[in-house]
Amino acid sequence: MKGIEERFARRVLGMKGSEIRRLFKMSMKPGVISFAGGLPDPQSFPSEEAAEVLHSLLRQDGKTLLQYGSARGDTRLIQIIQKRMHQRGIETEPEEILITAGAQQAMDLCARVLVDPGDTVLVESPSFIGALGAFRNYQARLAGLPMEQSGVRLESLIKVLKNLQAEAASPKYLYTIPNFHNPTGAIMSQEKRRKLLKIADEFDFLILEDDAYGDLWFELGQQEILPIKSLDKQQRVIYAGSFSKIISPGIRLGWAAGPKELIEKFEIARQVVDVCPNPLIQALVVRLAEDGYLNQHIGELRETYRLRRDAMLAALETYMPEGVCWTAPKGGFYIWVTLPEKLDASELFPKAVEKNVAYVIGQPFYPDESIKNTLRLSFSHEPEDMIEEGIRRLGEAVKEALTED
Amino acid sequence: MKGIEERFARRVLGMKGSEIRRLFKMSMKPGVISFAGGLPDPQSFPSEEAAEVLHSLLRQDGKTLLQYGSARGDTRLIQIIQKRMHQRGIETEPEEILITAGAQQAMDLCARVLVDPGDTVLVESPSFIGALGAFRNYQARLAGLPMEQSGVRLESLIKVLKNLQAEAASPKYLYTIPNFHNPTGAIMSQEKRRKLLKIADEFDFLILEDDAYGDLWFELGQQEILPIKSLDKQQRVIYAGSFSKIISPGIRLGWAAGPKELIEKFEIARQVVDVCPNPLIQALVVRLAEDGYLNQHIGELRETYRLRRDAMLAALETYMPEGVCWTAPKGGFYIWVTLPEKLDASELFPKAVEKNVAYVIGQPFYPDESIKNTLRLSFSHEPEDMIEEGIRRLGEAVKEALTED
Repeated sequence: MKGIEERFARRVLGMKGSEIRRLFKMSMKPGVISFAGGLPDPQSFPSEEAAEVLHSLLRQDGKTLLQYGSARGDTRLIQIIQKRMHQRGIETEPEEILITAGAQQAMDLCARVLVDPGDTVLVESPSFIGALGAFRNYQARLAGLPMEQSGVRLESLIKVLKNLQAEAASPKYLYTIPNFHNPTGAIMSQEKRRKLLKIADEFDFLILEDDAYGDLWFELGQQEILPIKSLDKQQRVIYAGSFSKIISPGIRLGWAAGPKELIEKFEIARQVVDVCPNPLIQALVVRLAEDGYLNQHIGELRETYRLRRDAMLAALETYMPEGVCWTAPKGGFYIWVTLPEKLDASELFPKAVEKNVAYVIGQPFYPDESIKNTLRLSFSHEPEDMIEEGIRRLGEAVKEALTED
Repeated sequence: MKGIEERFARRVLGMKGSEIRRLFKMSMKPGVISFAGGLPDPQSFPSEEAAEVLHSLLRQDGKTLLQYGSARGDTRLIQIIQKRMHQRGIETEPEEILITAGAQQAMDLCARVLVDPGDTVLVESPSFIGALGAFRNYQARLAGLPMEQSGVRLESLIKVLKNLQAEAASPKYLYTIPNFHNPTGAIMSQEKRRKLLKIADEFDFLILEDDAYGDLWFELGQQEILPIKSLDKQQRVIYAGSFSKIISPGIRLGWAAGPKELIEKFEIARQVVDVCPNPLIQALVVRLAEDGYLNQHIGELRETYRLRRDAMLAALETYMPEGVCWTAPKGGFYIWVTLPEKLDASELFPKAVEKNVAYVIGQPFYPDESIKNTLRLSFSHEPEDMIEEGIRRLGEAVKEALTED
């Protein structure tokens, strides 16, 4: 009998069991302060509200809410999303929106409908590992574009585009996280967003805009984080949103918004992927949005996460030795740390865990995995005192590694 | 600017917007008795129980249950599934089980991990449209095997296998629904199950066994519907189960069980598809199973659906004209009707809807869509009096179509 591995499809080569998970398991011991996962503050979850709302929904309408639902998603939820996007400058029709299992499913569907094996997808470098993995699953060729403080470096983009043009190739889309970028925390300047759209027009590619963190700004004006899609006159942008960071990730709800013809294909594809999103959980989100809870809650989250970011920045300032740099995000969940070049974040990892602190190594966020001295810290999950203590421990680990060397 | 359709991946050619959906929309008018969708009886949904259980779970453990969960699924739910499969003769380890978004996701993951474009997948003809669609999405070449009362016709299977052998090709897997087959209601004989496994050994292919209806037997002994996987000594069978038909389809929970190495790949793939199943909903199922509700509920469902099947068989006997044949399933949801050859089920459809009754046309269940005079009736959704009235209306429509002709 042939071994099971011999039967795998070629795309399985792109399915990496990850170094991160191995490290993650290593850090699962009591007493570890973890800045690793992109986990929202569990204290913020609407447990009480969800308990009451689900109870009342099931008693009123269980027969409908436990049945199969529409593959497109709950019409009322689509309208709520349409309205919320409108408030951020995006005009859409309901036919242009599909409810997904978190923003992650938007990544999967986008690659499924657009990417043939070998097609080029442009990605920021570093970028969100879950998206890179989704595109790799469809055998995309990932072209990494370096990040700078104001977002993706456009000079590099143009160079890559010209190289592709020379090969008579063109990218299927560019994937970007313009607001509170994962993992760097960067925000793409409005000027750069306009320029990016212009370049996309010139070279005729689509943009997949992941805005999972867009509601979590700390001190900016709304104007500064208007989505790229709000500037899009040509239906060139596919927008992905999520309720994971503003309600709960366990509920697995997000959305994709884009050209009607594309969203129709997403819908047809999703019917054979997971049939439909959970109608009961969609009704819960509708209720939380309609009764005003959601907006108030987002206001509270901004305050919570702002204080945590401040605590982490202050602690980094206090405890990190010379030669360590980090970003100062204006929202979202993440701070990106660059160690002195001679340090390797994966070699540092077990030493950090020994001191009971964990992070995510930076290497897998780069599509070519070329850079070893970066790491990502999430300030979202731990309260301020734990953040200070965790960064103190991490600072010690870094100092010791520097001395050893 | 290039049109969006010009940007689609080649696999989109396999994503059919379906005739069925068009017809389904046609039948969405008040007063229509629908035997179309594979919808469980909504009266049976555990609305009250779910309301109480979710309320208590959220108040006790909302911080965990609303957070990201494991991609593999809740360990307790996996143990419950392991035990339930054991009771049906299947021995597995927890490492061999993954929680999915309904059995549909098992179909998707299986094709994702095993099928390269052009690979052959053997399917029953007719077969479940959702599975055919999932395999087509990965550009599988579907080879249809005719069904007979005792399940798939093995002579045809051997012929197809020999033809493939002559091309030096071999199928990736055979997809089968041995218990209360969708759409025919057929049950594969135990003898045939053993023979099928032997043929799979000889020609060395895997079997994907979809057992979504296996708990819903009406008068058989458990022995008669032992899954193929219970006979599998070589880890040749990938088993897909579902809570859709025994609890609720809206909760989107099912599972895949198979060789550890394969399930590991399923897990890695699912991380970039939808990250994880909903932890809260998994905890709900754990509670319903642990407190004995689930088994009692399944007993009640068997009784409900048995009465509905009886009502539909009796009504067919009473109202159908000469020349119409149908199957007499021993469980599940479906009766398969063969009209006189000169009738086309899709031409009959608008006439049936005019008389306020709906069904699903048979054609798309055949991988080659070659047969036009069949249709599927679900007896699961409507109560007995509606079933009788609906079949009466359908009988009239058939009689009129026969006269017109």
